[in-house]
Amino acid sequence: MSNTLTDIASSVIDELSAVLSSAQIVTGARTESNRRDQSEGTPSGEPLAVLFPASTEEVAAVVTIAAAHRIPIVPQGARTGLAGGGNAIEGALVLSTTKLKKILSVDVANQTATVQAGVRTIALARAAEAVDLFYPPDPGSWRASTIGGNVATNAGGMLCVKYGVTGNFVRQLTVVLADGSIVHTGQRTIKGVAGYNLTALLVGSEGTLGIITEITVGLLPKPASPSGVSATFTHPADALAAANSIIAGARRPSVLEFLDGACIAAINAYDPASTLPAGAGALLLVQSDQLGQSREDAEAYAEVLRANGATDVAIAHDAESLERLMSARRLLHPAVHSARGGALNEDVTVPRSQLGALLDGLAEISRELDVPISTGGHIGDGNLHPVIGYNPDVPAEIDAAHAAFARVIALAIALGGSASGEHGIGVLKRDHLDDELGPVLRDLQRRVKAAFDPHSLLNPGKKL
Amino acid sequence: MSNTLTDIASSVIDELSAVLSSAQIVTGARTESNRRDQSEGTPSGEPLAVLFPASTEEVAAVVTIAAAHRIPIVPQGARTGLAGGGNAIEGALVLSTTKLKKILSVDVANQTATVQAGVRTIALARAAEAVDLFYPPDPGSWRASTIGGNVATNAGGMLCVKYGVTGNFVRQLTVVLADGSIVHTGQRTIKGVAGYNLTALLVGSEGTLGIITEITVGLLPKPASPSGVSATFTHPADALAAANSIIAGARRPSVLEFLDGACIAAINAYDPASTLPAGAGALLLVQSDQLGQSREDAEAYAEVLRANGATDVAIAHDAESLERLMSARRLLHPAVHSARGGALNEDVTVPRSQLGALLDGLAEISRELDVPISTGGHIGDGNLHPVIGYNPDVPAEIDAAHAAFARVIALAIALGGSASGEHGIGVLKRDHLDDELGPVLRDLQRRVKAAFDPHSLLNPGKKL
Repeated sequence: MSNTLTDIASSVIDELSAVLSSAQIVTGARTESNRRDQSEGTPSGEPLAVLFPASTEEVAAVVTIAAAHRIPIVPQGARTGLAGGGNAIEGALVLSTTKLKKILSVDVANQTATVQAGVRTIALARAAEAVDLFYPPDPGSWRASTIGGNVATNAGGMLCVKYGVTGNFVRQLTVVLADGSIVHTGQRTIKGVAGYNLTALLVGSEGTLGIITEITVGLLPKPASPSGVSATFTHPADALAAANSIIAGARRPSVLEFLDGACIAAINAYDPASTLPAGAGALLLVQSDQLGQSREDAEAYAEVLRANGATDVAIAHDAESLERLMSARRLLHPAVHSARGGALNEDVTVPRSQLGALLDGLAEISRELDVPISTGGHIGDGNLHPVIGYNPDVPAEIDAAHAAFARVIALAIALGGSASGEHGIGVLKRDHLDDELGPVLRDLQRRVKAAFDPHSLLNPGKKL
Repeated sequence: MSNTLTDIASSVIDELSAVLSSAQIVTGARTESNRRDQSEGTPSGEPLAVLFPASTEEVAAVVTIAAAHRIPIVPQGARTGLAGGGNAIEGALVLSTTKLKKILSVDVANQTATVQAGVRTIALARAAEAVDLFYPPDPGSWRASTIGGNVATNAGGMLCVKYGVTGNFVRQLTVVLADGSIVHTGQRTIKGVAGYNLTALLVGSEGTLGIITEITVGLLPKPASPSGVSATFTHPADALAAANSIIAGARRPSVLEFLDGACIAAINAYDPASTLPAGAGALLLVQSDQLGQSREDAEAYAEVLRANGATDVAIAHDAESLERLMSARRLLHPAVHSARGGALNEDVTVPRSQLGALLDGLAEISRELDVPISTGGHIGDGNLHPVIGYNPDVPAEIDAAHAAFARVIALAIALGGSASGEHGIGVLKRDHLDDELGPVLRDLQRRVKAAFDPHSLLNPGKKL
């Protein structure tokens, strides 16, 4: 059996060598660095090979070969994912998009950009900026992540509270289907209702419906330089009330972020330069980038924060001071991770009116299971990242962290929310999906998957 | 054979009578008023019955009966559609959503509303307004159209240039599937990536994938009272340049509409109160509803319009004068229709940079086929409505109008655009869809349709 597998494997590699150069095919121990994304505790396997196609046609050629042999394909971007969606599967072909890195066009008149899937998010943002345009979606990993990965997970970020998530900007996709055929979905135009909206269906499908090779996104005119406010609160409930009051107002914040007391304590322990007040119960960060209004907006936000009991309010109108205010938020994950050595990163959403109940429930889970949970994130979207710390050398802590992880998801779903707002399902949350979808919807999703990928070759075992 | 059909028909009506009241079942000649939407020249047939279910459960019961007998179902809203999507099919069951008219909730804290599919667009907009919230999508027929119909066609409108189309506001759908089962797609929350985005797939699917019975939409805080500008131009090219300059700027217009010289002439002939300058080559209407900026925006737009050669610029800062400025746009369709007695209403989109080529191409088609074409619409979105006039009593004019209609679609597709921006495909544009999609994408769309509706019972012959 093992011999037979090896024969097939080497024949597949021979066929791949006819369409890719030897530098584009990596096998054996050298596949190690492409086996996993940034998620902790997710399963992965040793792939048959990691492939680095450099064009849509090379992707199609690879998929055609894989399909002929019924070998699963795992598309993979920069492996910044947090749900194991890009983890290698034993015996599969990993298809890395990192050589698909051309910015094909930036169309100023139509305010669009067309890029290959492996272009880094920051490169797209910078290319837009260079012609006074703006690509808003800003996932935490945007300096490393690929646009293809962002589209595959429908990634969010801090600016999404005003501008929406990655999917809101995707107009057109070039996609290699499971049989190796190439299709172009969507329209270059702003509006378009010809055919079903397969573009929106492919966004967030985590490589299970097709392999996205090129993406056209819509861009916006560059906004004003942002002004911002940070404020600390003794009671998290006051921070929630302030955030709700900001959302209810007519001024639309471009950023509205929250950190709880545990985050603040972890950041203070991690960063000697931190100026966050010890013992604070919560921190809010608010920005406006509205043309002609951003200063006035920031002052108005400061008033709302003070009126809701903020104890320490700082306003920044220039980039440097604003960056200082925001730096705490960027330290959340490294700080919490460093506190114990391990951290499970949650990504639940709830209706905003349930944020208080979510925070109460998180405190209860932390207490009952004796696990540290530090919670921060996109409070304006109702999308928080409870980060569950554990010592990776203590099996009981690992188990408790995973038990807490499952309870947090169940809590969010019970509050009318979802297991994932922006990180994806991957392998990490697959088992929780049925609770959220129910059997009829799950079966419908599987029929949709089969319509795209009848032999389940595209990232099998992920997402669904 | 006819006897057999009648037997089946009467047995089906008996079964339906067990789940609906007699007032909810209309048969025979009384179905006449439910056979067609507002499109001209589209085919329709005599349905077996028109049904008026009043709850999701009644819809499910009806679909279960229809599925058991393999009888097609045509969902139908207010019949304001312009592509024949809601036209009755011979022998089918027409499922009118007009009794599904409950506003189920307006959730101020979470800025959402949940309504049944038959709620009129204006009723949803008013319910949001009553609690200082805002539902932006404003299709031309919004006073009569249903939200269900808007979702089924992904309807647009004048405000979409700033706020996006109907689909951008849809969070959650309750849907009766082809076998009568009920599913809830999407999330109540702002973000969510659990499962495939079936909500976005159902938006714009024109009743061919499932029957939408309830809809949760996101709402926005109420914007500022709009200010606006109207301007006429001697040369349409100058109006285009002005529109492009406005779009390229940082100020985001809430309305950016265009009328060509033929529209202006038709409106002047139709409305004795019209004050549009005779002989003008184009009209632009621009608005801003930006908090604290709308007056300044309107003044800035006026400057841009003048700089691009506008001959007649009027600014309005109050609702009444603004309504006067906008009234010309609302007269477009009645004016053009009345000029000849018949009018085919196009709905093509092109990349904005191709608008000049589109206008040139329309002039050429008008000249070559000797048909009057008046073009207006959402120039900021690249979505125009060339309206092709004809005398319905002159067969040669009908033929020429239809020939021009097909050429306009081919022109838009050749310019990188789409056959429909917001009206839908229905039966009207079905034959043009293959040109736009190509065979691989068309087959994929059909497999998706089959995943939802294996026996093709839901609005067969529409959309695809």
